[in-house]
Amino acid sequence: MVAKAKKKKKRVSSKKKSKSVKASKAKSTKTKKVTAKKTSKAKSAKTAQKTKTAKTTKKTTTTKRTKTTKMKMVYYFGAGKAEGHKEDKYLLGGKGKGLADMTHAKIPVPPGFTITTDVCREYYDNNMQAPDGLDDQIKKAMTKLEKDTGMKFGDPENPLLVSVRSGAAFSMPGMMDTVLNLGLNAETLKGLIKKTDNERFGYDNYRRFIAMFGNVVLGIDKDIFEDVITRKKKQRKIRQDTSLSVDDFKSIIKSFKRIVKDKSGEEFPEDPWQQLEMSRDAVFRSWNNPRAITYRKLNELPGDLGTAVNIQTMVYGNMGDTSATGVGFTRNPASGDKEFYGEYLTNAQGEDVVAGTRTPKPIVELKKEMPSVYKQLVDITGKLEKFYKDVQDFEFTIQEGKLYMLQTRAGKRTTPAAVKIAVDMVGEKLIKKEEALMRIMPKDLDQLLHPRIDPKAKYDVVATGLTASPGAACGKVIFTADQAVEANENGEKVILVRTETNPDDIHGMFAAEGILTSRGGMTSHAAVVARGMGKPCVAGCEDVRVYESQRQFSIGTLIVKEGDMITINGTTGEVMLGQIPTIEPELTGEFGEFMKWADEYRSIGVRTNADTPNDAATARKFGAEGIGLCRTEHMFFAEDRLAVVQQMILADTTAERQAALDKLMPFQKSDFVGIFKAMEGLPVTIRTLDPPLHEFLPNADEVKAKIKKLVDDGADEEKIGKQEKILARIQDLHEQNPMLGHRGCRLGITFPEITEMQVRAIIKAACELSKKGKKVYPEIMIPLVGNVKELENQKEVVVRVAEEVIRKMKAKVQYKVGTMIEVPRAALTADEVASQADFFSFGTNDLTQMTMGFSRDDAGKFLRYYIDKGIFVKDPFVSLDQDGVGQLVQMGTEKGRSVNEDLKVGICGEHGGDPASIEFCYKTGLNYVSCSPFRVPIARLSAAQAVIKEKQEKQKTGKSYTTA
Amino acid sequence: MVAKAKKKKKRVSSKKKSKSVKASKAKSTKTKKVTAKKTSKAKSAKTAQKTKTAKTTKKTTTTKRTKTTKMKMVYYFGAGKAEGHKEDKYLLGGKGKGLADMTHAKIPVPPGFTITTDVCREYYDNNMQAPDGLDDQIKKAMTKLEKDTGMKFGDPENPLLVSVRSGAAFSMPGMMDTVLNLGLNAETLKGLIKKTDNERFGYDNYRRFIAMFGNVVLGIDKDIFEDVITRKKKQRKIRQDTSLSVDDFKSIIKSFKRIVKDKSGEEFPEDPWQQLEMSRDAVFRSWNNPRAITYRKLNELPGDLGTAVNIQTMVYGNMGDTSATGVGFTRNPASGDKEFYGEYLTNAQGEDVVAGTRTPKPIVELKKEMPSVYKQLVDITGKLEKFYKDVQDFEFTIQEGKLYMLQTRAGKRTTPAAVKIAVDMVGEKLIKKEEALMRIMPKDLDQLLHPRIDPKAKYDVVATGLTASPGAACGKVIFTADQAVEANENGEKVILVRTETNPDDIHGMFAAEGILTSRGGMTSHAAVVARGMGKPCVAGCEDVRVYESQRQFSIGTLIVKEGDMITINGTTGEVMLGQIPTIEPELTGEFGEFMKWADEYRSIGVRTNADTPNDAATARKFGAEGIGLCRTEHMFFAEDRLAVVQQMILADTTAERQAALDKLMPFQKSDFVGIFKAMEGLPVTIRTLDPPLHEFLPNADEVKAKIKKLVDDGADEEKIGKQEKILARIQDLHEQNPMLGHRGCRLGITFPEITEMQVRAIIKAACELSKKGKKVYPEIMIPLVGNVKELENQKEVVVRVAEEVIRKMKAKVQYKVGTMIEVPRAALTADEVASQADFFSFGTNDLTQMTMGFSRDDAGKFLRYYIDKGIFVKDPFVSLDQDGVGQLVQMGTEKGRSVNEDLKVGICGEHGGDPASIEFCYKTGLNYVSCSPFRVPIARLSAAQAVIKEKQEKQKTGKSYTTA
Repeated sequence: MVAKAKKKKKRVSSKKKSKSVKASKAKSTKTKKVTAKKTSKAKSAKTAQKTKTAKTTKKTTTTKRTKTTKMKMVYYFGAGKAEGHKEDKYLLGGKGKGLADMTHAKIPVPPGFTITTDVCREYYDNNMQAPDGLDDQIKKAMTKLEKDTGMKFGDPENPLLVSVRSGAAFSMPGMMDTVLNLGLNAETLKGLIKKTDNERFGYDNYRRFIAMFGNVVLGIDKDIFEDVITRKKKQRKIRQDTSLSVDDFKSIIKSFKRIVKDKSGEEFPEDPWQQLEMSRDAVFRSWNNPRAITYRKLNELPGDLGTAVNIQTMVYGNMGDTSATGVGFTRNPASGDKEFYGEYLTNAQGEDVVAGTRTPKPIVELKKEMPSVYKQLVDITGKLEKFYKDVQDFEFTIQEGKLYMLQTRAGKRTTPAAVKIAVDMVGEKLIKKEEALMRIMPKDLDQLLHPRIDPKAKYDVVATGLTASPGAACGKVIFTADQAVEANENGEKVILVRTETNPDDIHGMFAAEGILTSRGGMTSHAAVVARGMGKPCVAGCEDVRVYESQRQFSIGTLIVKEGDMITINGTTGEVMLGQIPTIEPELTGEFGEFMKWADEYRSIGVRTNADTPNDAATARKFGAEGIGLCRTEHMFFAEDRLAVVQQMILADTTAERQAALDKLMPFQKSDFVGIFKAMEGLPVTIRTLDPPLHEFLPNADEVKAKIKKLVDDGADEEKIGKQEKILARIQDLHEQNPMLGHRGCRLGITFPEITEMQVRAIIKAACELSKKGKKVYPEIMIPLVGNVKELENQKEVVVRVAEEVIRKMKAKVQYKVGTMIEVPRAALTADEVASQADFFSFGTNDLTQMTMGFSRDDAGKFLRYYIDKGIFVKDPFVSLDQDGVGQLVQMGTEKGRSVNEDLKVGICGEHGGDPASIEFCYKTGLNYVSCSPFRVPIARLSAAQAVIKEKQEKQKTGKSYTTA
Repeated sequence: MVAKAKKKKKRVSSKKKSKSVKASKAKSTKTKKVTAKKTSKAKSAKTAQKTKTAKTTKKTTTTKRTKTTKMKMVYYFGAGKAEGHKEDKYLLGGKGKGLADMTHAKIPVPPGFTITTDVCREYYDNNMQAPDGLDDQIKKAMTKLEKDTGMKFGDPENPLLVSVRSGAAFSMPGMMDTVLNLGLNAETLKGLIKKTDNERFGYDNYRRFIAMFGNVVLGIDKDIFEDVITRKKKQRKIRQDTSLSVDDFKSIIKSFKRIVKDKSGEEFPEDPWQQLEMSRDAVFRSWNNPRAITYRKLNELPGDLGTAVNIQTMVYGNMGDTSATGVGFTRNPASGDKEFYGEYLTNAQGEDVVAGTRTPKPIVELKKEMPSVYKQLVDITGKLEKFYKDVQDFEFTIQEGKLYMLQTRAGKRTTPAAVKIAVDMVGEKLIKKEEALMRIMPKDLDQLLHPRIDPKAKYDVVATGLTASPGAACGKVIFTADQAVEANENGEKVILVRTETNPDDIHGMFAAEGILTSRGGMTSHAAVVARGMGKPCVAGCEDVRVYESQRQFSIGTLIVKEGDMITINGTTGEVMLGQIPTIEPELTGEFGEFMKWADEYRSIGVRTNADTPNDAATARKFGAEGIGLCRTEHMFFAEDRLAVVQQMILADTTAERQAALDKLMPFQKSDFVGIFKAMEGLPVTIRTLDPPLHEFLPNADEVKAKIKKLVDDGADEEKIGKQEKILARIQDLHEQNPMLGHRGCRLGITFPEITEMQVRAIIKAACELSKKGKKVYPEIMIPLVGNVKELENQKEVVVRVAEEVIRKMKAKVQYKVGTMIEVPRAALTADEVASQADFFSFGTNDLTQMTMGFSRDDAGKFLRYYIDKGIFVKDPFVSLDQDGVGQLVQMGTEKGRSVNEDLKVGICGEHGGDPASIEFCYKTGLNYVSCSPFRVPIARLSAAQAVIKEKQEKQKTGKSYTTA
């Protein structure tokens, strides 16, 4: 036994070695610094993937197979000893690991053994065949189990019955398969009846087993079995399964066996060993059932870890009133309150609790019913929580007064509960702040930042769409942006409902409480803009049909009219009629405490992308330390300004253009005054005009229609001529590829008067406030620079105008001039560019588009296909492509600092709010990330986690998996 | 004197040092390998530019000024000694250097002195003010000149008259200004008359001087002075200037002086020193006149070198029959034949020869007229050719039997002549092959590749002029430069017909196919410029009378109107009506020999971009060593195929699409058979389908119009429905940024059946030929890869289909699979991509667009502006942006080879035919460049020059300018 354990250890470590060799090889092909610091989880997932890719040829598999015969594939637990208590959950699965741990801790667990996840991977690699030697190891373990239980597998007199359960490294509740009561057949059934002296119990278990086996192992539809029972109950005129008699069961079992033969072509296997082998393989196969695949995709879990199989002695909660079964949590998983929480059923099997056919009792009642067992349960689970230092979600069975723990695992919880529990556990000195910070997935914080549906509220969902932007909102249904604005001005709360939104709707989206669209995905205009604004949005709600002209929408036969009140929940994608009560978010209490800790740990700054004083204030409330990107063009779209902007664009001469700009200046100045005020004392990075001018002009078809109408109406020449001029300019400004056209600094260079106006507005605003004693730190940012000379050109304009304004206003304002790095060439020549820049801000949206060669607008046609096919692991517009685009970020930072060591470097693309990208930015040495206001807390936590992860990586010696 | 020389030397070397420091600093900010190897010329140009940029602040200029007072600014030559004979042409200009060299070699040169180009640059840097100390140095030089000539500047008795001429480092014939007879005024005129005993000569010179000074220095229109003379001649009823009397001249001089006062507001300056100062500055200013700027732009000459000013004692060829003036070449500059070549006029001034007002005599006649002078001239020019090891273009004046050399410089020549001369000079052991190869600008080879009149063609010659620039051209007659440009933009081929051309016509000459003039000799403006441009030109065709205002010309009674087609043959001087057939050039004779030498030197391969068998054959004739890019989509546009392609695009199912593809396959296969045949034995790289599918569909507006018409015509539903389906698909396929859309391998991945069809066609074609014993080397290239998995995906398709076809056809075909590197990410992750590729081909068109972030289609709006403003030095679509895009080429090559050392790397963008880019590719270690067929010889020579330049760089020690 000792020798065996050693052997196993050796194997594992040599395997780990070969893994790490592969990983380091992979690393060498990438930028070193970053990859080297990837978390072990990511690494292992990646390595596993690579391994899989490498294993496509027959030869490799054969070599591997030879090895597996020597491999330890089965880990026994029972009688207070567990072979696997030093192994990790990646090998044993979460359930197997828990059982081993509990056994080792002398907690009563029905004995059994675990077949490792390695075996599952082998099974897949080996053309769905169990590896050689596995059967021997199982037989040996079974022999031990028989010894420890005093029963015998397949023995007609004293049959040992077992459960066969899946158990992957990550909990995937209900996704994979389980077979109970395995080992029963016509012979052993007799032994069971004799032993329990309960004929009905025996037959009940047997019929359950055949149906479960038929379904799980043989793939026969569950309903076919259910139908037999339903028919029997009808025939017998009874309602409950509990009313079925032994004879009923006998007849049902006959039918079940016939069904098995008809559907599978084989007799139901009576041989327990055959049952075991078939069930084991079925569990392996269930790893890749469609449910499981979908679940992993949704939860971003790796697809190649495989599942372990746990074979465990059956215990029964349905052996009378001294038997029971239940589930529970060591703390309240919804609120996080520290209370023993759970429910149970007397005289029932586990599936009865989960199935909800009988209403379970709250666990406190167990205290009265079985006080000593209750105490034992509280003691054990308390011990488990302390051992695992986390809330435990446990399953137990009481068989004739004896408590058995069947499972323990980290409990799933809501984000509010997760935060409360983490903070409480720090208070209880159970975990350290670091651990608390690592417990929350940053993106989950989003749930805490938006109004949410009151958990106590009761409501009906009438339609469900995509969770495009989180939070709940109620309001009157409205169908156009203009009406939304109007209603908003009248103090009404509205939900903007549209088939899909477009840039013309922005003012309406802004005025609305929330947005509901019937078309478009997670990256549709509505979704992207709503997220940016922090507005709840349900997008792509396909049941909804919008009839704008009739001012109503339908869901099936339901008609919702303009002015009707609805509630949408962007966190769940749900749409409800009427006003459902919501609760407002607050950054106080445990959440506030938690975020304070995050700030203690993080070293990278967090700014926000905000174009309005309102956004700026929200972001500041969420902890933003300045503005990383203020887009000035959004300020041009307001109706009173757009006309002047168009005047500027249509100008024939510089003088005309200047006149229009002079009109715009005061607007811009007041925008900046508002923003500077909201961010007083903090830096505000303002980008000069970026989009191509045609974005400010109407659509050509609209103008054509207008001209046609004017002509038809016999309007005068001048009016027609004006529209014709607009049309001509639209056609003149038309671009094949606007993304790669006349925009960014190219505008400011060809029309320096635009930059001049903007700088004048910024610096005037700053001077005004500065003279009132307010602290303002404007940072003027030039977009789309690809060549240092472009920056040089625009910097000259900025400095000239700024100095002039400051001199004239006799104010003291310190300003910085920097540039976006969003054109690949800027990153490649960052050493040149940095000579003219006080700061860099990586515009990773454009940088991604240009580096990867596809635009966000157009990539839809193949991006989903690419992700499905595994060509991309993630959407590169959501999470930074670290291997490609990341290289440019790194290069740009290094080269920039090589000539300008004080260069401040940030990121202001959508990636500034993505945890993985933030970790990358931290490792690359950026000074700050900038993200939309509602992502600020996410960024703060991500930034803290990046520091902690790095620290943990450093501390780790030899361990390749975290066991937390 | 010795001390001075030393001081000067020190200054120069320290200046050079500071330049090289700057250059190396600049280098450090770029990729080292490449920049470090730049030619010294490019480096100096670049450095100069940098210096200029740096000199924007007042402070720098002031510091500089202080320095210049100590600088040697004036170099004397005369009496067999020349201060500047060790200096280079960058300091003295070409003319100044030639004068110094000749003086040093005891060749009779009128003495004088040269003001350096440094002074010109100072003049510009110093707000158009001559630097301190210059006047002193000029005065000293003048004193020496007075001593050497025995005359005195401004002396009424024995006046020293001088010419003031520009002279830049690079010859810019006729672009800058000259003032002759300077020093004349009412007083010195008397001395001149007395000295020459020729009153008419004196007054003639005086009136010429006033007009020239008025025009060049004071900017008064030439024609105003001409008009006075014309009126005088009318009044006196005479035709020739030579018939004007002394009194006429006196009256003309009076008028001229009045014009000067009226137009300039000042009296004509009588003070010779003032004349000198003003003329000197005018020459400086002429460096930046519009003609000169255009010329430099056309010839890609740096704009910041400045010009030197040569002040030289006047000699006169118009002092009677023993005086003459002429120009000549040591070899025939049109054919390259080794013959003494030139023309002269007895009793004339230089300007008379150039202006073409009198038809000069061939130089052989001088042998009869003045045999000893002729012999002396042949001797001297022979010596000069040997000294400079190059054909000399010289100017001389014979003043009363005494020969003076006024200028010698490398003679401009046609490219055929240049090749012949270079090859001959190697034969004469005057120069080495390396030198011969360096003599030809690669792009000039283009001239050898254009059509000539088919010798079998029968045609009537309607007029004959001078063979000013060889080659044949047909086009419509056009009379003004602006119209030529306009016609050219409309895609029309035109012949520019003018009485004579002047520098204002350059843009029109560039736009025309050829030039025909009725006046002017072999050295007339038209002839010189046309040869430089490689345009056919027939000059001095005296039978032609041009009536520009009537838009026609006559030859005798024959009238040719604007828009009529004519053909000119610059090789024979012939003019024909209509379009005469022409034939393609061949690479034989000296040209063949020359190209063979280029191949001996070059190490990088040269392939061609060819989509048809015809192009492939042309390219092979020009020396292409395979196809580097065969675009398959061009094959889809033929009318019979486009319909099938559209069928494929409109297919609703994969089966429908497959059916259309099955129809296309035989077309594609036969295309490839043709191409493989044309390139037998050489590799053929074929790119799979690249453009977005909507490119194959009609324009949406067209289809809309069609539908409207069908509806209006009451066509049946089916017909309308078909068009509506097309329209729907067009709208469906519409992309915001097609450049960044669903194209390249993204098509092949989402529609693998397209790739399958193409591979099947390629490999079938290859197998067919292979079975006939032909050698074919297909290389299948996947476009637009940005991620190795894309290549993996497509490679799987290629290999699967190829192996299947080869197996089925039982043929032996070796094929390669590789990828374009045109997405920045592909270059950044080239180590990953290379693991799946046999070869890389840099698609630098797209790579430039994506790396710089602008599309070629849309950049027009700002690119010209950028180049004008100096933000870009060159159009990055013409010459590779080595600092930015070049980094990716380098990185891609290095990373690719790091995992696949046999990786074949080429380039197939437009840059593959650009000499500077080819040099870069050579230095980066690429295996080959691929360019359009007509650029193949250019690429071969560029590749050879790159090797030679590198060798020369290595040999160079301390020399920072080449003196060749």
